[in-house]
Amino acid sequence: MSVLVQKFGGTSVGTTDKIKNVAKKVAAFREQGHQMVIVVSAMSGETNRLIGLANEMQKQPDPREMDVLVSTGEQVTIALLCMALKDQGCDARSYTGGQVKILTDDSHTKARIQNIDVENMRSDLEAGRVVVVAGFQGVDDEGNITTLGRGGSDTTGVALAAALKADECQIYTDVDGVYTTDPRVVSNARRLDKITFEEMLEMASLGSKVLQIRAVEFAGKYNVPLRVLSTFEDGPGTLITLDEDNETMEQPLVSGIAFNRDEAKVSVLGVPDAPGVASKLLAPIGEANIEIDVIVQNVAADKTNDITFTVNRSELEKTKKVLEKVCAELGAREVATDSSIVKVSIVGVGMRSHAGVASKMFTALAGENINIQMITTSEIKISVIIDEKYLELAVRALHSTFDLDKAP
Amino acid sequence: MSVLVQKFGGTSVGTTDKIKNVAKKVAAFREQGHQMVIVVSAMSGETNRLIGLANEMQKQPDPREMDVLVSTGEQVTIALLCMALKDQGCDARSYTGGQVKILTDDSHTKARIQNIDVENMRSDLEAGRVVVVAGFQGVDDEGNITTLGRGGSDTTGVALAAALKADECQIYTDVDGVYTTDPRVVSNARRLDKITFEEMLEMASLGSKVLQIRAVEFAGKYNVPLRVLSTFEDGPGTLITLDEDNETMEQPLVSGIAFNRDEAKVSVLGVPDAPGVASKLLAPIGEANIEIDVIVQNVAADKTNDITFTVNRSELEKTKKVLEKVCAELGAREVATDSSIVKVSIVGVGMRSHAGVASKMFTALAGENINIQMITTSEIKISVIIDEKYLELAVRALHSTFDLDKAP
Repeated sequence: MSVLVQKFGGTSVGTTDKIKNVAKKVAAFREQGHQMVIVVSAMSGETNRLIGLANEMQKQPDPREMDVLVSTGEQVTIALLCMALKDQGCDARSYTGGQVKILTDDSHTKARIQNIDVENMRSDLEAGRVVVVAGFQGVDDEGNITTLGRGGSDTTGVALAAALKADECQIYTDVDGVYTTDPRVVSNARRLDKITFEEMLEMASLGSKVLQIRAVEFAGKYNVPLRVLSTFEDGPGTLITLDEDNETMEQPLVSGIAFNRDEAKVSVLGVPDAPGVASKLLAPIGEANIEIDVIVQNVAADKTNDITFTVNRSELEKTKKVLEKVCAELGAREVATDSSIVKVSIVGVGMRSHAGVASKMFTALAGENINIQMITTSEIKISVIIDEKYLELAVRALHSTFDLDKAP
Repeated sequence: MSVLVQKFGGTSVGTTDKIKNVAKKVAAFREQGHQMVIVVSAMSGETNRLIGLANEMQKQPDPREMDVLVSTGEQVTIALLCMALKDQGCDARSYTGGQVKILTDDSHTKARIQNIDVENMRSDLEAGRVVVVAGFQGVDDEGNITTLGRGGSDTTGVALAAALKADECQIYTDVDGVYTTDPRVVSNARRLDKITFEEMLEMASLGSKVLQIRAVEFAGKYNVPLRVLSTFEDGPGTLITLDEDNETMEQPLVSGIAFNRDEAKVSVLGVPDAPGVASKLLAPIGEANIEIDVIVQNVAADKTNDITFTVNRSELEKTKKVLEKVCAELGAREVATDSSIVKVSIVGVGMRSHAGVASKMFTALAGENINIQMITTSEIKISVIIDEKYLELAVRALHSTFDLDKAP
């Protein structure tokens, strides 16, 4: 008899019929003798409806009251799911974040979990009851309702699994697992049976929007086996676990190919070469709350610096405005921007122990006459910035070069 | 500087614009230096929407989960109202029933308030903050969410006023006060400036649906001055207070005329005269959860009993079914029913100290050729059952007989 935490997102509980379907699934697991803890999101559309109401009341809605408001979305779902479970003869009890209680800091709308009381849940589980918990929400030490930010329900699931020492945390969603790359780009992309936390982090942050980064980090930190599955089709999904040393040797060099279409490139050319110039240039951008992704710096022949970096496309205009002032002060020659670029990355823990992965990647791209504009590397990831018109071509070439279309 | 508790019902907060309007009203009171505690209901329609969802999940929705579900309605309103107040520069903080905390027993969907913590509210009020509390809900001693039943928001308002020793509890609604009778029946019905708790109880239970009976009882018990006012028009409303002896003398004999169109009459004829016969007849009806209102018993010439009583029209068929079996056992001759009757009552603490009020009432009805079928009296009320076709005629005749159209 194992303890399972299952999380169902907004589309999985989007209608009363879908909630009944979830209840059927959960009741079947309970029948098999598992102790079940279910985490649910708000019914799809509900959170946006509530935020719409808030925006009508106040230009920048008060964060504390925003949390009081949007946390009702999950509260509705937990009650409805318990009713559906009881209707099927499966005993269940609902808990809001505050009732569990999921203690967080007091950063409204983006709170972080500090502690979870498992006592009540344990006694419900012992009594054979399914425990249904509202995702995305908690309570600070003064009893104020907090929320974990969008997608926080995944984090709730992982945190409960860690606190309860559950055997697995299963994230039900509308895809049946993690793929070697986006199947809309490469038709023979393959579902991965297994992937490591590290790889998943790199894949997620690069645009494979299956799981919240934060939930994966949390799962990795507490070593909670995490599984992504489809609510609507049966299947094993993808298991995300620790990279155990023995297995690495047999793993493929590259596990997946991620890409991001949302970036824009900014080049500051002819910056006088002097210590601290990069920080002088980039600090004001950070202060303006603009996130920078890839950064490359090169010293040119004339002893000036060229610094190139990428930001989210939606923040390109804001970035240019910040740079105008800074570049004048620094005496830079020119600022050039390009928003028709993409980032393509290969990810895999296997590349740690194998040389030549990068050159294999660059050769594959050269073979397709794709010009590489920027390169960055980490231990388990190599990313390149290329012209966006080559995205599909590059992803397909790499997918085939690293044999991702073949089962391992 | 006084402490005011104001309660706004579902129609007063039915849209975001209406919530803004409430915020404007509240901010103006705050400006005047009052310490303000606001109790709100769910936006109109919201509670019914949630109950509709519950009914889709389970035939008889689980009461504990029902409370988790419907309590979200008021939680949405408190957050929105606080945002609207802050948007007007008026500091405010919201509290769910559990956060206050409003401790209740564990009778889900019809819980009763046992205790209220005022500490947090007090410190908010001292800090100049408006306190906004979700009506209708509380929490039991195990932390489960409870609700007080429909209309429970009035009760929340009165209970908070009692706990905070507020100067007044103001119930804002869509009428501008309590009237001598229904203005739709008597066009020159007059708004009362003042009425006693006792009178209000008799008026409310007789069908003047301005205030919840339970809230009036509560207010009377803790002597909380209660005022009914309109959200949409300015005016003094009607103040409901204790009957102070000195004032009684100057009060009119009759304060108002109430009526109830929802009753049906049941006569059990020819019941053998024996001790305990009324209880044998009526106990099974009570056991079937049917409420009985007026009861009259007479011994007929042939030493058999005629027992007549009224029930709600919607329960007449159920009542007949229960009686079939009982009457056969008791050897009663016949059961006759009549659902085309109404109850008309005159109410007034003034009648306590004056004889002749009843005969004045009966004379007025006789003057209009209205036959009286049943009579019951209490200390401050006289009710008659008459044919429903005479309702308007009777109410108008009594309104004029007791000078209710003239200002006191």
